Amino acid sequence: MNTPVYRRARYARRGPVPHELVQVEDFTPPPLEAGQVRVEVLAAPINPSDLMTITGDYGQLPPLPAVGGNEGVGRVVEAAPGLDAIREGQRVLLPVGIGTWATHVTARADALVPLPDAGDPVQLSMLAINPPTAALLLQDIVDLQPGEWVIQNAANSAVGGYVVQLAKARGLRTVNVVRREAACAQVAGGADAVLVDGDDLAERVRGATDGAKIRLGIDAVGGAATDRLAQALAPGGTVVNYGAMGGGACELSPLALIFRGITLRGFWLARWFEQSTAPQRAELFGALARQIIEGTLHAPVAHRFGLDAISDALTAASQGGRGGKIVLVPNGDPA
Amino acid sequence: MNTPVYRRARYARRGPVPHELVQVEDFTPPPLEAGQVRVEVLAAPINPSDLMTITGDYGQLPPLPAVGGNEGVGRVVEAAPGLDAIREGQRVLLPVGIGTWATHVTARADALVPLPDAGDPVQLSMLAINPPTAALLLQDIVDLQPGEWVIQNAANSAVGGYVVQLAKARGLRTVNVVRREAACAQVAGGADAVLVDGDDLAERVRGATDGAKIRLGIDAVGGAATDRLAQALAPGGTVVNYGAMGGGACELSPLALIFRGITLRGFWLARWFEQSTAPQRAELFGALARQIIEGTLHAPVAHRFGLDAISDALTAASQGGRGGKIVLVPNGDPA
Repeated sequence: MNTPVYRRARYARRGPVPHELVQVEDFTPPPLEAGQVRVEVLAAPINPSDLMTITGDYGQLPPLPAVGGNEGVGRVVEAAPGLDAIREGQRVLLPVGIGTWATHVTARADALVPLPDAGDPVQLSMLAINPPTAALLLQDIVDLQPGEWVIQNAANSAVGGYVVQLAKARGLRTVNVVRREAACAQVAGGADAVLVDGDDLAERVRGATDGAKIRLGIDAVGGAATDRLAQALAPGGTVVNYGAMGGGACELSPLALIFRGITLRGFWLARWFEQSTAPQRAELFGALARQIIEGTLHAPVAHRFGLDAISDALTAASQGGRGGKIVLVPNGDPA
Repeated sequence: MNTPVYRRARYARRGPVPHELVQVEDFTPPPLEAGQVRVEVLAAPINPSDLMTITGDYGQLPPLPAVGGNEGVGRVVEAAPGLDAIREGQRVLLPVGIGTWATHVTARADALVPLPDAGDPVQLSMLAINPPTAALLLQDIVDLQPGEWVIQNAANSAVGGYVVQLAKARGLRTVNVVRREAACAQVAGGADAVLVDGDDLAERVRGATDGAKIRLGIDAVGGAATDRLAQALAPGGTVVNYGAMGGGACELSPLALIFRGITLRGFWLARWFEQSTAPQRAELFGALARQIIEGTLHAPVAHRFGLDAISDALTAASQGGRGGKIVLVPNGDPA
């Protein structure tokens, strides 16, 4: 049996170009403390929030130096004495924020979510952040009823794809807005309408939805795109923003706010993690894991990279128009 | 006894320059129908919403031609037979939206709010729109407790002045933001802090309030000023917008929305009129009328104009930095 190699992708300072800052290095794993397990990482995605953590633009920043990566799936390879309930080889979802861009991580056993052996580990590695974001955007902002329409922009993003699929599963209908014609084809199957953003968006939405009263707009772009979503909503509707792909402040006309009663708020999964109870989290993750394993919830993957290719992986993840997520497979391709 | 002259200030089309569109003309009042009274108008202000109604930018637009003016105070001069409860000479608050820029208006008796003979009719003429706006901004958005701070911009506006006075009466403390140094002196007495807007506003607010957790920001400016208010709020705070003096869309950074949990919403008095009950309206107007009559609620008046000077009055009302409201006194100065 070969002695495993322990490697991790770490950065010592923040700056605007992540691929120049993150370095892969060998490390010696610490001895396991009581209650801890060692997990071999099977797959870990590169999310926009990972890049924003390295650039310093995210709302929570770890002390430096830090191992990159906030989510992933792995396999338990070693458990501290006394952890008899943990089976070696058990597949687990890693706790969010642990630094998953590594061949191995050390974690508290009680922070792991056990996963069945079935299901694509690459798909499961994207379970902890984007699917709950999509689910909570559809569930916690407006009390939507089956048959209602929802509108979102950045619909070809990973979260956008999960929104389409989860909305469909709930009997909701989606208007999906993208920024360019070529992105229409990247919107997940099941989308009820796909439109390219533009000044006459509200009018085209009315056409596509037969004038439906849309109460929820999901915004990941910001700038004037926020106001265009607002214009497509019924009076009293809510725009929820969870990202700023356009780079600018959300804009909302006083006309929309005052005369049409539109509300603008934000959604941050980290706050939900703080405010939710453990049973609520277990219920949501369990439901989402089942859908991923069944194949009804899925995100396209543009490329898989080994850990040593972290620089190429970060460069790819920083570019728009990829058509899918960038996922690290630190111990080789698990599929 | 002279036969009264009936005159009104009316416009037949909308356009960007109100003083070019509104004309004073004689009119023959209609015979009173059952339940109606004729009221001599004592005073009627020119509000920003009146100008926006003429330019077509307001959320509700009357059919054309229309008499200008949405609020005012008058004196009953004639009542339809059977209205024995109405005393001739009774001072009344006119119903909002009736077209008050006239020597006389005809109204349903049951839509009038009786007022005592005491109190300055010019101050009382401004009762129906700005004071309830200020009161509801302080009362319906966030459940504020005595001792808490509130921040507002456009603090030297008429609503801004009422906010300062009503906040003081409730034991709230106000940070008042104005756009230029010269406007600091126009903020109503009782203001706890007055600051000129700027990029470092949030830092200066922390200094002025000893780092108080401010949960409500009241915005009448829009543009980047909205985000500057948001930056001065505690996490989870709300910005409520009720005007767009800056002319642009409200801007709110995704950082404020997502990571700091700031919500942006609008307030429109017209919606409150629709959604409130008659007892709620009577209670609020009664309380505000008492404060105006006692002299604890007051707005500065820059100029009084007769009805024939409507063009000069509209020109004056369209200019910033006036230091007070423009009020029409259609039957001569009542004071």
